[in-house]
Amino acid sequence: MKKIAVCSGSFDPVTNGHLDIITRSSEIFEHVIVAVLHNSKKKALFTVEERVELLKEATNHLEHVEIDTFNGLLIDYMKKRNAHVIVRGLRAVSDFEYEMQIASMNKKLAQEVDTVFMMTKNDYSYLSSSIVKEVAKHDGQIDDLVPEHVALALKERFKGNT
Amino acid sequence: MKKIAVCSGSFDPVTNGHLDIITRSSEIFEHVIVAVLHNSKKKALFTVEERVELLKEATNHLEHVEIDTFNGLLIDYMKKRNAHVIVRGLRAVSDFEYEMQIASMNKKLAQEVDTVFMMTKNDYSYLSSSIVKEVAKHDGQIDDLVPEHVALALKERFKGNT
Amino acid sequence: MKKIAVCSGSFDPVTNGHLDIITRSSEIFEHVIVAVLHNSKKKALFTVEERVELLKEATNHLEHVEIDTFNGLLIDYMKKRNAHVIVRGLRAVSDFEYEMQIASMNKKLAQEVDTVFMMTKNDYSYLSSSIVKEVAKHDGQIDDLVPEHVALALKERFKGNT
Amino acid sequence: MKKIAVCSGSFDPVTNGHLDIITRSSEIFEHVIVAVLHNSKKKALFTVEERVELLKEATNHLEHVEIDTFNGLLIDYMKKRNAHVIVRGLRAVSDFEYEMQIASMNKKLAQEVDTVFMMTKNDYSYLSSSIVKEVAKHDGQIDDLVPEHVALALKERFKGNT
Amino acid sequence: MKKIAVCSGSFDPVTNGHLDIITRSSEIFEHVIVAVLHNSKKKALFTVEERVELLKEATNHLEHVEIDTFNGLLIDYMKKRNAHVIVRGLRAVSDFEYEMQIASMNKKLAQEVDTVFMMTKNDYSYLSSSIVKEVAKHDGQIDDLVPEHVALALKERFKGNT
Amino acid sequence: MKKIAVCSGSFDPVTNGHLDIITRSSEIFEHVIVAVLHNSKKKALFTVEERVELLKEATNHLEHVEIDTFNGLLIDYMKKRNAHVIVRGLRAVSDFEYEMQIASMNKKLAQEVDTVFMMTKNDYSYLSSSIVKEVAKHDGQIDDLVPEHVALALKERFKGNT
Repeated sequence: MKKIAVCSGSFDPVTNGHLDIITRSSEIFEHVIVAVLHNSKKKALFTVEERVELLKEATNHLEHVEIDTFNGLLIDYMKKRNAHVIVRGLRAVSDFEYEMQIASMNKKLAQEVDTVFMMTKNDYSYLSSSIVKEVAKHDGQIDDLVPEHVALALKERFKGNT
Repeated sequence: MKKIAVCSGSFDPVTNGHLDIITRSSEIFEHVIVAVLHNSKKKALFTVEERVELLKEATNHLEHVEIDTFNGLLIDYMKKRNAHVIVRGLRAVSDFEYEMQIASMNKKLAQEVDTVFMMTKNDYSYLSSSIVKEVAKHDGQIDDLVPEHVALALKERFKGNT
Repeated sequence: MKKIAVCSGSFDPVTNGHLDIITRSSEIFEHVIVAVLHNSKKKALFTVEERVELLKEATNHLEHVEIDTFNGLLIDYMKKRNAHVIVRGLRAVSDFEYEMQIASMNKKLAQEVDTVFMMTKNDYSYLSSSIVKEVAKHDGQIDDLVPEHVALALKERFKGNT
Repeated sequence: MKKIAVCSGSFDPVTNGHLDIITRSSEIFEHVIVAVLHNSKKKALFTVEERVELLKEATNHLEHVEIDTFNGLLIDYMKKRNAHVIVRGLRAVSDFEYEMQIASMNKKLAQEVDTVFMMTKNDYSYLSSSIVKEVAKHDGQIDDLVPEHVALALKERFKGNT
Repeated sequence: MKKIAVCSGSFDPVTNGHLDIITRSSEIFEHVIVAVLHNSKKKALFTVEERVELLKEATNHLEHVEIDTFNGLLIDYMKKRNAHVIVRGLRAVSDFEYEMQIASMNKKLAQEVDTVFMMTKNDYSYLSSSIVKEVAKHDGQIDDLVPEHVALALKERFKGNT
Repeated sequence: MKKIAVCSGSFDPVTNGHLDIITRSSEIFEHVIVAVLHNSKKKALFTVEERVELLKEATNHLEHVEIDTFNGLLIDYMKKRNAHVIVRGLRAVSDFEYEMQIASMNKKLAQEVDTVFMMTKNDYSYLSSSIVKEVAKHDGQIDDLVPEHVALALKERFKGNT
């Protein structure tokens, strides 16, 4: 039985859409690892350490959920952690195609790893870390879109920016 | 924890694409119910009883997999069976949109039920019961597309038809 | 200026998704005609007269909204009514493509007629008359999906059916 | 070298969109077979014989183009005619997915047969036999959409119908 | 009644596709504001001032059309201008998904603002500012794609570049 | 008759997906030119000269296939080479839309040039040069994805990188 699932991503920062998927994963799998990708090429708003902290605070009411970071291919990280399921949230058709390609590639690289998809709740179907940052940067209303402590961190980061 | 999953469909008849999804579900969930829909409106090639038999033979090597039938709303059947996860296979974008609508509706009808999606293996991405029936009807080669006993049942059914 | 808009469809029966589009149209156009299509080929649950009645009750709080019926090509009806804008709701990509074809054809048939699209609210993105009928038929919960009097009409129609 | 191409379809009736694809195919392949499908299940407006006649008149200015009919699987017909390329017109994303499934299935059934796609000219991207019939039935303007003799045949067929 | 509409974008430079949407908007709304986005991150070919000038010349035959610029969130600009309708052109499915996300987000940020979509004319469905710049840069033919004065401005800009 | 086809792209580096399309093109057209785009803006892993060498080795078993490079608009290159058919591989819906725009634009720029599409084999539907580079960079298994000499070149390039 495949009992350990990984939700990977940049989480820069974690949104209510991510939390919806993490929560629902934790109801199906015995252990859920939220794996934050170190990606030196993409410029991030928060450091990997900050992102991990924001995620920890956002998930500390959930049992069996662990926050970690990884480098390189997700498949190699899965092997190291003995995890066999990748959980991905789907919002739209364009997500779907990209995810299908990644899932196929991962299946090719590691036959024993499976990818399962969950649809993001309708309320969050427009939500992404980038759109949240764009709104926060211009001092827009983000209280329904991210947990309270993330909203604060965003406001702090963009202070004096507008 | 949500440990019982349902794979629902017409299965008229079961294909290797269906079996791929059922097998992978059985590696994640403790109990998998394959639920064949009674749909009096759609004309089927095989009776519900025949479809159940073909599924039973195709899955008898899998533990924790049960074949059943249902009527009416899937959500009502889920409640009756105390199952909380619907597993659906996705082949293409058009599948995706339809499935997204159904999943949203089911979420609305039963908040506690979750839908997870798996991508059909690339080899089976063109596969459907209808296309298998169309090929079998004209005596085309279907040996890689369905289990052996299903191929036989199809040949039997279409005998003298071409 | 193009001040008269037409929302056409089968409305069998009207849903909250339709009402969302009709209401928003009435905030932009000076006069909105909701045009119910007589389509003898498609089997309907409600007669055209019943559908008109359900629409009238659902829209009687809206000014400048008129319920009518039509036959044949929408473009011919538009000319007869001196209306120059068709309003269509979009829920998903598959809607979009079909609508794009119809809008192109209508543009070809009547250069002066324009089609504008509105996105259905996220809450109603899974909603259609067919799915409402399917749920109502099995005695499912439809109170958030259609106006109260439509829910009653549906229950009445399916009484003794399940 | 694969020098014989087949354009298959219902052609009920042939439109300017079909002719665009047939003409362009005849500029690439040494011989083009337009193959009209006998499909007893789908109700057609024109008989197969009438459709063949309309196609013949529409293509008699094109060299190397032959009109034929077929039954059963396209792949079996290809073998019989020693043809190795299927040409398909693509109008939209929904076409694309369906066509991708059919092309994959045909590749599986006959490794040596290839499918090539051409995009329908923008002007005809909304065009289909069904939409032409719908417009013609209500006496709409179809002169730019089909060849002249097809427009006449449609008018004749729908005379007294409206 | 919502009588003021905003067409926002980069317009670097304005194309015939943009003009088609602006013109049709001006036939439906009493006042149309074309709002050019200041986006310091994206490298533009023309300055915001130049883009405004090209737009002014392209729209000076249209009544009730005003050219303006904005910074930050579109929704904030809408409030400042007391405008309640965003008009967007749709060319393809990928546009559609992105636009659906933006429209949902804007609805969330400002309940009273509505987004309406128009389909770009078939002739312009392949048209974008980037593709026009790419063609102009290599001295390709762009006379049907942009107004005459824009074609001149592009040729001027790329002179000596090839 | 249009007998010369061009397969254009970056080929950084050539994959088995590219080779599948090139091979099938060479079975239909009398001469196939694989045209590597000089694109100074996009940062490439291999130089144009290296990419040409890798392509030559990968296609030296194919008759009538020539490797060349080009600058500027593909259409101008086509004219110079007296070629009239562009061959493009399609993997997914997102490819399709982009390709449709490019094909429309090219048709506009050169009426006599036609674009034909082939679907990439299912096995390669997830394959792209970028994904191959990403996997190779982390020392993942790429032996089924590119020809042997390309796998070696990639390993060489990324040596000491992980």
